[in-house]
Order: sequence, then structure tokens, then C-alpha cells
Amino acid sequence: MMYGRYTQDLGVYAKEEAARLRESGQRRSVSGRSLDLLEYKGRCAKCQLCTVRCQKFLISRVGEDWIFLILLGLVMALVSWGVDFCIAICLQAQKWMYGGLDSNVFLQYLAWVTYPVVLITFSAGFTQILAPQAVGSGIPEMKTILRGVVLKEYLTFKTFVAKVIGLTCALGSGMPLGKEGPFVHIASLCAALLSKFMSLFGGIYENESRNIEMLAAACAVGVGCCFAAPIGGVLFSIEVTSTFFAVRNYWRGFFAATFSAFIFRVLAVWNRDEETITALFKTRFRLDFPFDLQELPAFAVIGIASGFGGALFVYLNRLIVQFIRKQKTINRFLMKKRLLYPALVTLIISTLTFPPGFGQFMAGKLTQKESLVTLLDNRTWAKQGIAEEFDYIGNSQAWKHPQVNVFVTLVLFIVMKFWMSALATTIPVPCGAFMPVFVIGAAFGRLVGESMAAWFPDGINTDGTIYPIVPGGYAVVGAAALSGAVTHTVSTAVIVFELTGQISHILPVMIAVILANAVAQSLQPSLYDSIIRIKKLPYLPELGWGHHEKYNIRVEDIMVRDVRYITLNCTYRDLHNVLQSGHLKTLALVESAESMILLGSIERAQLQSLLSQQLGRARRLEYIREQSAAEKKRLSEVSHTGSEEECQRVSQEVRFQISTEESSFSPTRPTPVKPLKPALKRASVAERPTELPTSPHENSGIALKSLFCGVPDADALEKNNNNEESPPSPEHRRPSKRVRISVVEPDLKNFPMDDGDVEDDMTLREITEWEEKQLDEQVNFNNCKIDPAPFQLVERTSLHKTHTIFSLLGLDHAYVTSIGRLIGAVSLKELRKAIEGSVTVKGVKVRPPLASFRDSGTSSSENEATELHKLWDRNKSMSLPREQTPSESDEKSQ
Amino acid sequence: MMYGRYTQDLGVYAKEEAARLRESGQRRSVSGRSLDLLEYKGRCAKCQLCTVRCQKFLISRVGEDWIFLILLGLVMALVSWGVDFCIAICLQAQKWMYGGLDSNVFLQYLAWVTYPVVLITFSAGFTQILAPQAVGSGIPEMKTILRGVVLKEYLTFKTFVAKVIGLTCALGSGMPLGKEGPFVHIASLCAALLSKFMSLFGGIYENESRNIEMLAAACAVGVGCCFAAPIGGVLFSIEVTSTFFAVRNYWRGFFAATFSAFIFRVLAVWNRDEETITALFKTRFRLDFPFDLQELPAFAVIGIASGFGGALFVYLNRLIVQFIRKQKTINRFLMKKRLLYPALVTLIISTLTFPPGFGQFMAGKLTQKESLVTLLDNRTWAKQGIAEEFDYIGNSQAWKHPQVNVFVTLVLFIVMKFWMSALATTIPVPCGAFMPVFVIGAAFGRLVGESMAAWFPDGINTDGTIYPIVPGGYAVVGAAALSGAVTHTVSTAVIVFELTGQISHILPVMIAVILANAVAQSLQPSLYDSIIRIKKLPYLPELGWGHHEKYNIRVEDIMVRDVRYITLNCTYRDLHNVLQSGHLKTLALVESAESMILLGSIERAQLQSLLSQQLGRARRLEYIREQSAAEKKRLSEVSHTGSEEECQRVSQEVRFQISTEESSFSPTRPTPVKPLKPALKRASVAERPTELPTSPHENSGIALKSLFCGVPDADALEKNNNNEESPPSPEHRRPSKRVRISVVEPDLKNFPMDDGDVEDDMTLREITEWEEKQLDEQVNFNNCKIDPAPFQLVERTSLHKTHTIFSLLGLDHAYVTSIGRLIGAVSLKELRKAIEGSVTVKGVKVRPPLASFRDSGTSSSENEATELHKLWDRNKSMSLPREQTPSESDEKSQ
Repeated sequence: MMYGRYTQDLGVYAKEEAARLRESGQRRSVSGRSLDLLEYKGRCAKCQLCTVRCQKFLISRVGEDWIFLILLGLVMALVSWGVDFCIAICLQAQKWMYGGLDSNVFLQYLAWVTYPVVLITFSAGFTQILAPQAVGSGIPEMKTILRGVVLKEYLTFKTFVAKVIGLTCALGSGMPLGKEGPFVHIASLCAALLSKFMSLFGGIYENESRNIEMLAAACAVGVGCCFAAPIGGVLFSIEVTSTFFAVRNYWRGFFAATFSAFIFRVLAVWNRDEETITALFKTRFRLDFPFDLQELPAFAVIGIASGFGGALFVYLNRLIVQFIRKQKTINRFLMKKRLLYPALVTLIISTLTFPPGFGQFMAGKLTQKESLVTLLDNRTWAKQGIAEEFDYIGNSQAWKHPQVNVFVTLVLFIVMKFWMSALATTIPVPCGAFMPVFVIGAAFGRLVGESMAAWFPDGINTDGTIYPIVPGGYAVVGAAALSGAVTHTVSTAVIVFELTGQISHILPVMIAVILANAVAQSLQPSLYDSIIRIKKLPYLPELGWGHHEKYNIRVEDIMVRDVRYITLNCTYRDLHNVLQSGHLKTLALVESAESMILLGSIERAQLQSLLSQQLGRARRLEYIREQSAAEKKRLSEVSHTGSEEECQRVSQEVRFQISTEESSFSPTRPTPVKPLKPALKRASVAERPTELPTSPHENSGIALKSLFCGVPDADALEKNNNNEESPPSPEHRRPSKRVRISVVEPDLKNFPMDDGDVEDDMTLREITEWEEKQLDEQVNFNNCKIDPAPFQLVERTSLHKTHTIFSLLGLDHAYVTSIGRLIGAVSLKELRKAIEGSVTVKGVKVRPPLASFRDSGTSSSENEATELHKLWDRNKSMSLPREQTPSESDEKSQ
Repeated sequence: MMYGRYTQDLGVYAKEEAARLRESGQRRSVSGRSLDLLEYKGRCAKCQLCTVRCQKFLISRVGEDWIFLILLGLVMALVSWGVDFCIAICLQAQKWMYGGLDSNVFLQYLAWVTYPVVLITFSAGFTQILAPQAVGSGIPEMKTILRGVVLKEYLTFKTFVAKVIGLTCALGSGMPLGKEGPFVHIASLCAALLSKFMSLFGGIYENESRNIEMLAAACAVGVGCCFAAPIGGVLFSIEVTSTFFAVRNYWRGFFAATFSAFIFRVLAVWNRDEETITALFKTRFRLDFPFDLQELPAFAVIGIASGFGGALFVYLNRLIVQFIRKQKTINRFLMKKRLLYPALVTLIISTLTFPPGFGQFMAGKLTQKESLVTLLDNRTWAKQGIAEEFDYIGNSQAWKHPQVNVFVTLVLFIVMKFWMSALATTIPVPCGAFMPVFVIGAAFGRLVGESMAAWFPDGINTDGTIYPIVPGGYAVVGAAALSGAVTHTVSTAVIVFELTGQISHILPVMIAVILANAVAQSLQPSLYDSIIRIKKLPYLPELGWGHHEKYNIRVEDIMVRDVRYITLNCTYRDLHNVLQSGHLKTLALVESAESMILLGSIERAQLQSLLSQQLGRARRLEYIREQSAAEKKRLSEVSHTGSEEECQRVSQEVRFQISTEESSFSPTRPTPVKPLKPALKRASVAERPTELPTSPHENSGIALKSLFCGVPDADALEKNNNNEESPPSPEHRRPSKRVRISVVEPDLKNFPMDDGDVEDDMTLREITEWEEKQLDEQVNFNNCKIDPAPFQLVERTSLHKTHTIFSLLGLDHAYVTSIGRLIGAVSLKELRKAIEGSVTVKGVKVRPPLASFRDSGTSSSENEATELHKLWDRNKSMSLPREQTPSESDEKSQ
């Protein structure tokens, strides 16, 4: 049926095929009116020809990447603008309510508090009901998905709706939450859905490696259209989601993100919000002398402090989550009323920001956007003390308090917003933490800037012209540094340039961001990695760099030596034992236990199928039939239709079926049975059919055993549920992904009728005896799919390289061989363990990039500890230099 | 001796060892004064302890990446500043000469022309003599090196000197040449040298994968310190040099490039050139209304035109090179006098730019930097016609001609500079094309901008305020678009923002750059790829994307089925035959010709060594000895010291030696002999010793046959010259890289003495007979290094994926297996052929990214051509749906 042919005519063919099937279905159902149908068919053929032509043209256009990217950009720009618009309306409504009730403070408070509580509760409830996957940022999940792991239900339409509406409500409440993370997720959802939609036209959309590339571009679009920052968006999405980045994919992100940002800003112009396309948070710093060289230490201080602050934020966020999880009494109470926690948190936060209350000391009146705009203002606030009169116009007034200094307001704002943001991001609604952190960083930068301005009222420069200090520039630096520290990215620098529309502070920003990253990375994982750990998502941790330990650990140190394997001439009993003893998803196939030459790997499910087939009812029936035939040769009229037909018939009755398309192609089954109830849906991205490889090489062994011919017992059925007949894949084997399996309840009415001619009159003992005999037979691998080239490593491959290969190719396990011989296996688990340092052999300790700054203080003590070992090593190597030389030759030769 | 132990104590140990050796050497040489020495040793021990401590501290610091990166950044900033300074002086000198001779036009002309001719000729000659590798841009070579190919002599100190001095002279001449490409090369050179220098302190610098990472960072530094554009530098270097980019390497580039750019600009401040750190080509466009939405079509036009222009530039450049190469008569003449071509080109170009001559119509007076500054000016030139008086101050005057319109000047400038730049970049001096192209682009943008300004004198906006059009903004857009088109990069957009210090035109720039890329990529390869093709550098072409063909071609379509292999139980004769028949660098080792189970791969050199050893003189002598011993048992006093000792002795005499450290550790040789004349230097980056792996598994077969025990004949010697004992490397096998081999001329004086006790009295016929007998013996692979896990693919792996894996892992060949059985091999050559479309099976046509725009016009005819095929395919699949289904299962399952 030509699945997997990524040619342009696939869609056409599919249409035709669908039409044909529809037709034949109609013919079957309305078999009486055959004449009408023939006529209909004639007309239909003409229509088909026409539509085929049209579709061919469409497909040849639609198949192009750039059309997809433009559509993606357009949709996301509209979504982003729409969400922003709704949020703005929500916030205005709150202000209006608050403003209208200014006669009564209590009513005012009630309005101020109730509004966000209702919105957040609705958002939490809505998300919880529609798609719980929409909760949170989405970036950690996208990182995992781009690693190649398929997360269930993360890219569905339901999640899209839940995320968009949930996000709008959550942000409309005015809580310190961001839209960046969720937008990465929304863009990916959009790409996945668009891809699914486009696949109605063309076959190219069904290729998974293309899908992954598109998802990567979508992440860039997400950030790009959120901030109107195409370049920063591309870079941020690369840094946050990828381990290895294909440069050929680079322009896609740029293209889509630019288009999206363009449309996003054009919408603002058309809506008369802006006069022309400019930056989102335009600044107006002077260009000729943006900063003095002597101000750089202050910028460096911002960077370092932001680094500590970022680490603290991540830590605080994790602490809150863990606290909530651990406190069983609270937890039980909150769990009972699921929406209580969001409501409670919202209540606390909105109470504290109530403008006539405590909010007056922390500019509580301002929305996130307003505070950011005021913080990036290029006027100096602190001058008021010195230069007497300074008129705070517009929103800047909020920072001015008659009794309290602006410094106090800023400090309070920073401290309060800091814990508020850390707390708010734990609410189970779609929300990000980037924007709140960005605002806090800007406030911190402003604080330092205002202090500098107060300290040097006439600027530092002494060369005649007075260049006063620009506190707004400090705010820009602070924003980039803190958000960089929390997310462990450098590209926040680019994002601030695009957000503010000015790049004059490039060097201070870069310096601060790099310092902040250095500090933060040495203290804590990034916020996204922290969430990945909290959520226990399957992900390979990053390997630290620049450290020697990883070159010294080899695969042989971490591999599992006791590999479960099966031999080419093994019996079914061996198979049974192996299957009983372990839970690995794939098993190694070796030539013989003596030679141990690795021939390939077989999926557990394949073996289970082989075994159950051998012990299955069908074979037993056949056996009985043969027995009876031998005994009663005279009773030749007893139907003995041969095993195949029998097999088929039984299979139809039992209706245990794998709805992979492979099954429909099995030569033993004339008509494919439609799956009735897909009980186990395991594929989400790649729900397209895989299909039967018909190898021209009779030796390739990819022949398929399509269907089970019988149900041996409940246990076997249980096992078979986990059965996955995924096609052989040479390097990227990610089993349990692509195949949708459906167990159809056995039709009990018809069941007893089917045994028909042969009676299953064996006793339990006879069956056991028969099974024992069967188990001693040699396994026939002809009908079994074997992956002929599982990924192999040599025992001396270093941990560093193993990690690189695993993350490059998205492996989840690899065999360790030595001249063709299997000597071990290493899986993600071992690798993760080794990287996370729980391997005791050499005591690996992983360090994130930039962490080399950390051990300036601690290295001496570490050195002391390993001193003895080194001495011993050295002595040993001196006395036996020719035998002790530890070879890293495989490492070096790369 | 612990090579390869990338631990911190390696350096310490090496020092100690060196001290010990030195000591023992001293002791040996001055053996009389042993008392003194003992005393000296006592003192030395104390000193050692002290130095060891100091060094340990140093090494623990020096080993850190960030120190390396800071040093790299610092050095490169100084180099960049120094080069700029010298160039400025050179250019000033020319101006001064030109200015001083204004009394006589002829003398003026002579001065104007001679100066650049002398400089360029010197530069060409100097580079030619010192290091011809320094010629040209260097980016294509860096791209190749980062792919994993080692280019000889490209990263040596000589090249560094030649490149820096040659570049300074070339740019000082005022020719339209750039410093960006060479700076990428210089930074890489600097990193390689620095790395070599640092490896004196610590062992970590000897790891090649680290070196590659550092080279990638160095490329970023090169661009970064050239333009003071850290972000653009990082992105540009990624786009230009990488195929897959490790995100963990990302911050390195940022860190080093930022530091470098910072120092570079700080030097300018300290030198009083600037008041504070600002952009290199600072612009002062207005911020509030940088451009109108309605101007966007003009920007798009610039982008598209730049795309065509960029493609034309690349084509022109290649055409000139090919023309020069083809014209044999010219070529012979030019070749004879190598410096004539540069001189001639310089003469033509400088004559045409002579300011009182034709140069007055094309602002010939201005240097590249000056013209760029004037082009980015935010005032409008064209206004002169309308608004009467406009004073061109400073350099802008050059654009004003009393008789000629400014538009004509601009057009002439663009046209002349276009072919001049294309011509100048073919001169064999260190030079880049980025900057000239950038200037041309800016001029083109200016032209469009001035036209727009003349067309809409009061701006397009009709909402009250008058915002006149800013032609400088168009210049920025044009510069980014044209340089992006020539280099096929998007990051030129970021570079212009950093160069101008303004980001307000982000959307026009992005749109123009993307359009320019789309057009240029569909027409021509990038300038760097073009040079790679011209220079025939080993490189894997990029695979087009978004096109279906590549999913349909599988490895089995392109693989070589007739693989040379050797079996485990083969005879030496088979070995001989296999070696005679092919030229592959590695040979597959299979279990037997029947089973064809792939066990590993062996390097050709290993086999040659095995063979020559079997047929070697040593064995023959041993044979004679044994014979004689058997015959004359009574002559037991004849020395029969056993094969090993003999072997060793012979080896010492013959002095055929591999200077890999392996040889010095071979158990058979007590004292390593120093290589006298390294005749064949094959390693350039990785000239560090590889060493003997001592496997704990006796089965791993990585035991090493370290030395040849005899020289069989001249032919074998010849063969052995190509012998490479590179260590087993599991996946990244790049043979012929790491090992330095030196053949030491046999010391003829000592040679006849060495045969010593046993006389080689066999006749030629006897020898032949003996050899025939030897050839029939079974090969003993015990002393042979086998790569136990060569990279394997399955026959159904798609071309797309094969390409990905090859470029990810830097492979140069892979075996194709089917359930452990070898069925074919695929190498870079086959892959390149398949990608470049010379495979006729399915007629692949490769398309660069963004090329999908191209076939809007042509697709219909293409569709017609394949119509028949599709129909036929469809019909076939309809009639035999179950057998014809072509499985892409391996593709899908990934």
C-alpha cells in the first residue's frame, strides 16, 4: 500500500484508495442497487481525475517547507497577538473594577483579590479537566520530546486548547507569570497539528525526522513571536532544547520566527497601538556614550549577584514543589480540593500587592508589562533627592511613595516579587517563569543603576563632557543576567536587545550574562532541568566539560556485563528462561554461547510472540489433529485443513490484534479486521502506520510474523498486551513508540463454535507434557524481526564519547563488543548513573558547563583526597611501565 | 608511561620523568664525577618537590577551559588590534605620499600605484615562501578541519606568521580585500598553537576532541574580534564551519568572543581613538520611527537583488579562478613569474581607483573603512537636488562630484567594486571577501535608499508627523543582505547590528537577509563551498532538505557490494591477493566466506605488516637457523639466541621505525631509538603520542605488534612507508591521521655486520620456494590490531540518515550488514556521488536549503517527466499490493 513512500503521489494514492474502499463499502452495503452504483462509479472516475490533478498541484506546493513555516509563523503570530489582546482586556477589566470602587477600600480589596482568584481557579480547573499535560512551562517537555522520547498526549489538539485558554486566564489574572515557556509548547503543538493537517494533502508530513526538525523550528517561533525577537528566539530555543543542533535546520527557525515576529508586530500597527514596527519595550538611551568603561565593575557585580539570585530562584522553586509534595497532611487536603492550592496562592499574592495596602511600597498597581516599561525608562529616578523636582509621569508614579525612598520601593519589589514568582510558577496552570524573572532582574539592575547614579551624580567620565549614568541601561543588564542565570542561557542577551530595540549596551550585557551563567551553573541546574528532574522525565543529563574524569571512565567501567542474550540455536526453553529473568526491551542475539558473536538484537515482544506461538493453542490443536489423524487414518473425512487456515480462523475469532499496518499485510490474513477499541495508545507524534518491509534479501530476516495464532493462556495474553512489533531500526532504536496496539475483546458468543472439528480434549497434564516437549524444540527465527545492526561500542570508549554518541543518535542502549563478541551492554540508565556520579569505580562528579569557576575554593581539598591514589598510580606505572599504561587510544584516535 | 591519562598529575609526572632522564643522561655522560652528581641529585630532589607543588597548582588552574579561552581572546584581540593599527598606518602612508605629490599628477599616479603593487607583491611572495597554506580566506579549510579531516601544515606557527604579516600587507595596500576569513584562520592557528603551548603544563591539551571544540570556539573569536561582534561572530562561525553543532560548546564561543571583542574595543579606548566602548561603525538613525511599514517592499527588493548579486559574485569569482587555470599560455607565463599575477591585478585595480582619474567617479579616494562609514551616514545625500544646499563634510565629499550625480557615482562604485573584489580575492595572498562584499552591499542599499528618498522627499507616512526616509538604514540592510547571500548565512544580520550598534532595523534586515539567502542558495553554492570545490578539499556536501528523493534512496542503492574482506582463517596468500587487488585503507574481517559475519575491520597497514613479517628476513633467518640447527645438532655452540632477541637486534640495525610512542613501549625493545629524520609527517593537529592499549581482556585482540622485525624487500619497505599503526577507534575512524612515521635510512656501514651469526645463504629460488610455503600458512591475527566495532548500517538505511550519521560522527566509511553479515560498504566517495546526483538509480538531485523557492517555475515540467513513472509505480502497487510495498520501516522507526 506504499506507506512510507515519501513521494508526492502518496496523498493522491491514498485518496484514490480511500475512494475505492468507500465505494466498495457502499457496494457491499447496498448490494441491491448495483446499477446505480456503476453509474456513480463512472461519474466518480472523472471527478477523481480532476481532483487528482488539483491535488497534485496543491501537494507539490504544500510539500514545501517554507509554506509550512509561513503558516506556522502566521498562526502563532495570531495566537500570540490574540492572547496578548485578551490578557490586556482582562487586566484592564481588573483596573477598571478596582478604579470604580475607590469609595470603599474593602470592596476595592474584594474586587482586587476575587478577580485573579477566579481566573486562576478557572484556568487550573479547565486545564486539569481538559488536558493536564498543558500545566506548566512546556519547555522541559519539549526538550525531552526533541531528544526523541515520545510523551503521551503532549502534542494534541486538546492540549493546545487547554494551554491557550489556560494561559490567557492565568496571565490575565495579573499574577507574576510568563508566557514564554508556554508559547514554546503552544508553537510545538501548533506545528504538530499543522503537520497533521497538512499530511491530508501530502505524504512528506508523515516523516518523523522532518517532524522533529519542524518542532525545533516551532520552538524558535514560540519564543520569537512571544517577544517579537526572532534572533533571540532561535538562539534561546536552541540553547534550551537541543544538545546537538543541525545547522541545516538553522534557517528554518530564522525564517519562521522572523515571519512570525513580523506579523505579530504588524498586527500591533494595524491595531493602531504603534505607529510603525518597533521593539516591544523600546528604550531611548543615548547612543554616543552608552556607558563608561569604569562602570563595567558595576555591571560585573550585577552579573555575579544575578547568578546567585538565579540559582536561589531555581532552588526556591524546587523547594516549594518538594515541600508541597512532602507535607502529607497539607497535601491530602489540597488534593481533595484540587483548586484550593491555586486559589490560596493567588489570594496571598494578590493580597500583598493590593495597592492601598502593602502594594503601595512595591508598585503593586503596575502590571508586569508596565513595571518593565518603567524600569527600562532612561530617566534617573534617584535624582529627586538631589535635583529637587522630578515629575514622575504616567506609570512611573507608582514607584514614588511620599514617605518611602525609591530605593526601598525597589528592594521591596525585588524581594517580594522574587518569592512570589517562585511560588506562583508552582501553581498548576500553564505558565512560564521567564518574564517574572526578567522583571525582577530589571528591577535589580535598576536598583544598582540608581545607586550608581546617586553615587556619581555627574557620571564617572572626567573628560569634559558630563555623561550622567543611565540606570535604565543597568536595568537591561540586570534583566538579561537574571533570566540568563535562571535558564542557563546566553541568548537572553540577544533577547533583551531585540526587546529594547537597542544594542548599545552589548558588552555590559554579555559580560553580566556570562558571569551570571558561570555562577548559576556552578550552583544549580537550570530551571528547566530542575523541572525535568522534579517531573522525572526521561532525559540524559548534560555532561560537564573541561574535566578530566570523563575521559578516564570507559564503557567497560559502567557497562552491565551480565547481558541477557539468546543464541541462534537456542531452544524455546532458553527463550522462556531469558524472558522470565529480565525486563529488557531488547535482547541480544549471539551466534553461540561460546563464540558470543553479536548478530543483532530482537525485541522482547518478538520473542514473546515466538514463544506464545510455539506453545499456543493453535499449535496444540494442530498437534491433536495430527495425532488423531495418525491414530484414526480411516477417519480421513474429518476436516484437516492445515495449520495455516486454522490459524487464520482462530485469529479471527480471538481477535487479539495489533493494529499496526503490518498486520493487515500478513499473507495469512485475507481481509484486515478493523481494530474496534484501541485500548493502548502508545504513539502520539508518530501515529502513522509503519509497514511490512519486504526485503529482497531472503537472509535479512525482517520477515514478519504478523499475528498471533492463538491465545495460550491469560498470562500470555497479559504479556502480549505489551507486545510491540516495531520495525527494525538500525541505530535509533526507541522501542515502544510507534505502534498502536489494540486488544479486541474476544467475541464470546462465537468463541466455542470455532474449535469446530477438532476437540481440545487434552488434560492439563497432557498439556504440560506437550508444552515441555515443545519447549525443547529449537527456535525458528525465520519469522522474527531482528535488528541486524544494533549500536555497538568498544569497551574502551570513553564516557565522554559514549555520552556524545547517545545524545547525537538518541540511543537508549548500546552493546559493547570486542571483535564481534558481545561482552556487555550499556543503557541510558547506566549512563545516567555514571554521569550523575553514583558510579563508585572512579567517583565521577558531573559539572555543568561554566562550572569550572566553582572549584577555585574546593579544589585543594579534593586534590588532597585523590593525592594518595595518584601516588599509587604513579608508583605502579613506574614500576611496571609497560603493563600499566592505560590506553585511551580509542579516545585519542577520534 | 601514562600517556592518555588526562589527569592533572600527568604533567607533573612528565616533568619528573624528564628530570629523571636528564639526570640519568648526565650520570652516564659524566660518569666520573658521581659524587658531585649525588649531591646534585639531593638538591634536585628538594627542588623537584617544590616545583612539583607549584606546577600542580599551575596545572590545576591552567587546565581550566576558561583560562585558555581568556588567553585566546586576549591574544586575538591584540593581534586584531595590531593588524588594524598597521593597516591604518600603511593606508595613511599611502595617503600622505599621494597628498605630498599633488604638484605632479604622474608622480602622484606612480606613488598611488606602486605602493599597493609593492605591498601585494611582498605579501604574495612572503606567503608563498613561508607557508603557501596561508593563502586565501581560511574558512573553507577550517570547515574541512572541523569536519575531522587533517590538513597538512594548516595549523603551524609558520602559517600563523605568514598569515598575519601577509594579511597586514595585503590590506595595507588598500585593495578591496577583507580580514574576516583570514581572522578565522588566524584565531584557529592561535588556538592550536596556544593549545600546544599549554600542553607543556597540562595533559588535557592533548585530547583531540577538546582541540576540535577549541577550534570551533576559535572561529567565533576570529569573527568576534575582527568586527567587535561577539554574538554575530559565534553565529557566523557556527553557520560557516559546522554541520552539527554541540550546544554545550556554545558558551565557549560566546565567552571567548566577548572577551576578545571587549579587549579589542578597550584597546581602542586606551589608544584614545574612542571615548568609550561603542560599535565599530556606529550609526545614529532615529529610534522612534526607524522605517515605515510601506518601505518594506523596498527592503525586500534589496534582499532579492542582493541574492542575485551574491550568486553572481560567487560565480564570477569561480569563473576568474577557472579562467586563469585554463588559459595555459597565460598560465605558463604567470606561473613562471609567480608574483606577476598579483602585481598585474593590483596595477589594474589601483589604476582604476586613482582619484584624479576614473577614481573620482567612484569615490576612489576613500579606504574601505571610510567608504563604509560614509555609506552608513544617517543624512540623505540625494536631497541636494531638492533642498538646495547640503554640505558634504569630511569623507562624504568623495561621493560628490561637480558634474556627476551621486546616483551615478554610487552605480559606478558598485559595478567597479563588484568585479574588482571578485578579482582581488583571487590574488594568492591571505585575504577574505566578506568586507568588500559588505561595502558593495552597503553601497547598493544606499543607492536604493537615496532613490527612495528622492522619490518620497517627505517620507511615506501620512499621519501628520513627517518622517523622512533614512538611506543609511537601507545601506545597513543592503550590507547584511549581500554578505549573507555570498556566504549563505543569516547571521550577517546580527553582525550588522553589532557593527552599527543599532538594532532598530531588525525586521527589514532579517527579511532582506532571508530573501537574499533564498535566492542565492538556489543559484550558487556559498563562496566558501565554492572554494572548497575549487580547491578539491575533502568535504561532504550538504544534503538538501525538504525533498523526498533522499528518503527514497537507501544505502543498498549506493553501496559497493564487492567489498574486499579477509576471513578469520585465511592464509597469507589470500591476504597478499586482497592487498594487491585494492587500495582501501581498511579491510573488513569476517568470520568465514560462507557466514560473512563481520568481526571487525583491520587497517591495510596492519595486514601489510603481518604479511611482511611472515615473509620477512627475520623469519627467514630464523628458518635457516632452525634448519641449520636441525642439520647440525653438534654445532650447538653456534649462537641461537632465540627469535625474540634476534628480532630485536635486527630491528635496531635496520632502523625502520614508527615513531608512534607505541614502539617505545613494545616489550621486545629495551631502549627506544629516537627517530632521526621524520620523513613523512602526517599528523598536524594531533601530533601527540598514541599509545599501546593493554587490554585486561585477553580476547580483545588489541594486542600490538609493535615493530617490524625485518625488511623483506624494497617493495615491502615501500609499502611500509604508508604504514600507519593508528589505534583502534570504534566509530570515528579517520585513518592516516595521527601517527607520525619516520623511516630512518638504514645505516649502511653497520648493516652487513648485523647478520652476524646466521648467514643468509639461500638462493633466490630457495627464497621463492620458502615464501610460497609461508604464504600457505594460516594468518595469525593475534598480533594484529583489529577495530572491533566498525560502524555498521543496515541496507535499508536511507541516504538522508546515512548522511546525517556520517556528518555527525565524521565517518569516512561504514559497512553495511544484515544480521551480522557483511553485504556491502559505503564510503564518503559513494555518499558524495549519491548526493551530487551521479547515481543513476533514482537520479538524485541535491538542493541546498532554501532552494525550494527555485522550482516554482520548473516543477511543472519535472512533474510531467515523472508522471509515467508514478503511474507505473501506482499500478504496480495496486496490482500487487502485498509484495510491492516498499518498506521505509527503518526510516520510519527512527
